[in-house]
Amino acid sequence: MDIEARAHSEHPEALRLWLRMLTCTQIVEKRVRGRLREQFDTTLPRFDLMAQLERAPGGLKMNELSRRMMVTGGNVTGITDQLVAEGLVERIDVEGDRRAYRVRLTSKGRRQFNDMARQHEEWILEAFSGLGEKDIATLHRLLGKVKEHVSAPQEAAS
Amino acid sequence: MDIEARAHSEHPEALRLWLRMLTCTQIVEKRVRGRLREQFDTTLPRFDLMAQLERAPGGLKMNELSRRMMVTGGNVTGITDQLVAEGLVERIDVEGDRRAYRVRLTSKGRRQFNDMARQHEEWILEAFSGLGEKDIATLHRLLGKVKEHVSAPQEAAS
Repeated sequence: MDIEARAHSEHPEALRLWLRMLTCTQIVEKRVRGRLREQFDTTLPRFDLMAQLERAPGGLKMNELSRRMMVTGGNVTGITDQLVAEGLVERIDVEGDRRAYRVRLTSKGRRQFNDMARQHEEWILEAFSGLGEKDIATLHRLLGKVKEHVSAPQEAAS
Repeated sequence: MDIEARAHSEHPEALRLWLRMLTCTQIVEKRVRGRLREQFDTTLPRFDLMAQLERAPGGLKMNELSRRMMVTGGNVTGITDQLVAEGLVERIDVEGDRRAYRVRLTSKGRRQFNDMARQHEEWILEAFSGLGEKDIATLHRLLGKVKEHVSAPQEAAS
C-alpha cells in the first residue's frame, strides 16, 4: 500500500494530487537508484555530481559544484575524493589563486558518464511511456505552473 | 539554478518532464520539512509515522508500521522510541502473543498530530494554489496514468 492509497478520502483535491505526485516521483527515483546500483555500481549523488561536471567542460570550483548538487544532498567533498581516487574526476589549479582548484571529468569519467546518461534516459523514457506526446506536453505545462508558483517569493507566514 | 534548468536542451520531452516533476516535488517537500521543523520542532518521518498510526486506531505492529513507512525511509524503531518517551505514542500488548506489541497514538499524540495535519494541509493547498480546479483534476489524472504504468510489473531488463 503506497502513501497515496493511505490518504483520507476527505482530503481535498490538492492533497490527493500532492500524494500522487510524491508517489510517482518516489517510484521513479527508487527505480533509477536501484538500476544505477545494479548496472553501474554507483549512486544517484555520484551520477548527479558527474552530470554537473559533464555540463562544465572547464571544471567547477567546489562551492559551485556544491551549490548545483544541493538537491540530491550528497556529501560533495567525499564523493569527489572517491571519484578522483577512481580516476573519473581530476583536480586542476585555478590560475591566480594558489589555494583554489577546480574539478572536472577525466576522459575516462566522461566516457563512463555518457554510458550511464544514455541508460538513464532510457529508464526515464520507459517510465513515462504510458503517456502520449500530448499528455507529456500537458503535464509539463501544468507542472510548470506549479513550479512557477512555488518558486515565487513566499508571503510572510500567517 | 535548479536541476531542471541545468538539463540539456537536446534531452527528449520525457526527460525534461521528469526533471520538472523532480524539481516541483523537491521544492514542496523541502518546504514541508522546513515548516515541520520550524513550527512543530519535528521531522517528516516523525509526521509520517504519526499519520500512519492516526489511520489505525487499534494500533499497528512494528512490521506493519515499517512497511507503511517505507517511503520516507526513517528509522522506525528509533522514531517510535522517541515518540513513546515524549508521551505521544504508547505500546500495547497483543492478545495471545506475549512477545508482540502494537503501537498507537496516545490522546496527546492524536491532538498534536491533528494540529500538524491541519497545517500540513494548508501548506499543500498553498503550494498548488497556482492551479485552478480543472488543472488539478487534469494533473491528477495524468499522474494517475504515470503511476499505473510505473507500478505495473516490469519486463525483464533488456
